[in-house]
Amino acid sequence: MKLYTYWRSTTSYRIRIALNLKGVGYEPIPVNLVAGEQRAEGYATLNPARGVPTLVLDDGRVLTQSMAILEWLDRTYPEPALLPDDPFERALVQAAALGLATDVHPVNNLRVVQRLKQMGHSQDETVAWMNDWMEQGFAAFAALIRPDTPFCFGDTPGLADICLVPQLYNAHRWGADLTPFARLTEIEARCLALPAFAAARPEAQPDAN
Amino acid sequence: MKLYTYWRSTTSYRIRIALNLKGVGYEPIPVNLVAGEQRAEGYATLNPARGVPTLVLDDGRVLTQSMAILEWLDRTYPEPALLPDDPFERALVQAAALGLATDVHPVNNLRVVQRLKQMGHSQDETVAWMNDWMEQGFAAFAALIRPDTPFCFGDTPGLADICLVPQLYNAHRWGADLTPFARLTEIEARCLALPAFAAARPEAQPDAN
Repeated sequence: MKLYTYWRSTTSYRIRIALNLKGVGYEPIPVNLVAGEQRAEGYATLNPARGVPTLVLDDGRVLTQSMAILEWLDRTYPEPALLPDDPFERALVQAAALGLATDVHPVNNLRVVQRLKQMGHSQDETVAWMNDWMEQGFAAFAALIRPDTPFCFGDTPGLADICLVPQLYNAHRWGADLTPFARLTEIEARCLALPAFAAARPEAQPDAN
Repeated sequence: MKLYTYWRSTTSYRIRIALNLKGVGYEPIPVNLVAGEQRAEGYATLNPARGVPTLVLDDGRVLTQSMAILEWLDRTYPEPALLPDDPFERALVQAAALGLATDVHPVNNLRVVQRLKQMGHSQDETVAWMNDWMEQGFAAFAALIRPDTPFCFGDTPGLADICLVPQLYNAHRWGADLTPFARLTEIEARCLALPAFAAARPEAQPDAN
């Protein structure tokens, strides 16, 4: 399959980790978000939201939206499982992951930063905007995961870890103060020690610059 | 079960619709977001993200994040189904719903509007911010759903319709131009003719004012 991806995209990073964890090979196709390639008409027919990631299956069918792709991957390639089977336990993991996917990432992504700058905000004001949402979001995330497991919800990484690591990459980039979130950065270090996460890192991508 | 809800909250509205469609009774507990009741310490222990909805089950267990709650409801009360069983078809419905839940709602919710005002933006600038994200989000949504079914993906309402109707309520409130989105407002009218949607409307809630 083909993955339309951008090296620094938080949501592309989630899918790269999951594909690696599942051992599913893919061809990465870079979409340069800073250059606006996601707004080209040809790409927009594949992904009407004009974002990344887009996953094109071997039969040509197309999937978009990272959280939908992650669940599809987990159903299609069940091992190792990214979500528990029990509906309640599953909803707890999804709630933590969705906290980052809805309360942090959308207010902190590239198009919002670009818009704030167009509206005349300084770099300092943009940094404050980013960090305030991150601080609230990471505090909620830390309260929703288990307090004492190697990964967010157990002995192996799952959906919550897959959303956490890319969001922390963005946090480091923006200089967020992560000292109140030692449990999260410990989990991050444990994840990045795994080949599946390490190979998915932005810096390890062919389009990194 | 108990649902912590706010009459005008887009995400609470989603859960009210789903509970009504499933025929699951619940006790609504209003949380006045404008008065900041979601930030009270007692509430934050229930919902660390300090938002609504929060669903408290009869055994006292707590679920947060509307998209996680919706999937839990669909697994726990399978009829009528909100999502198809087929993994690919399921991912298409989720992608449309998540487009609204991640690309529109989080940049258009109350806390972001309050923040823009704190940053000195006028009502006109805030309205332009809201409408630009809505226009992009509704255009993507319209391209992701089926072109010719009574509801977004078939003959009965599902997850995408449950996300669409509350987002359109917000669009009407902010004066968005919906003339390019006739298919969406037609689906909205069809949904609101159903008792499950009508009873979930903001204006029909005990805390409406």
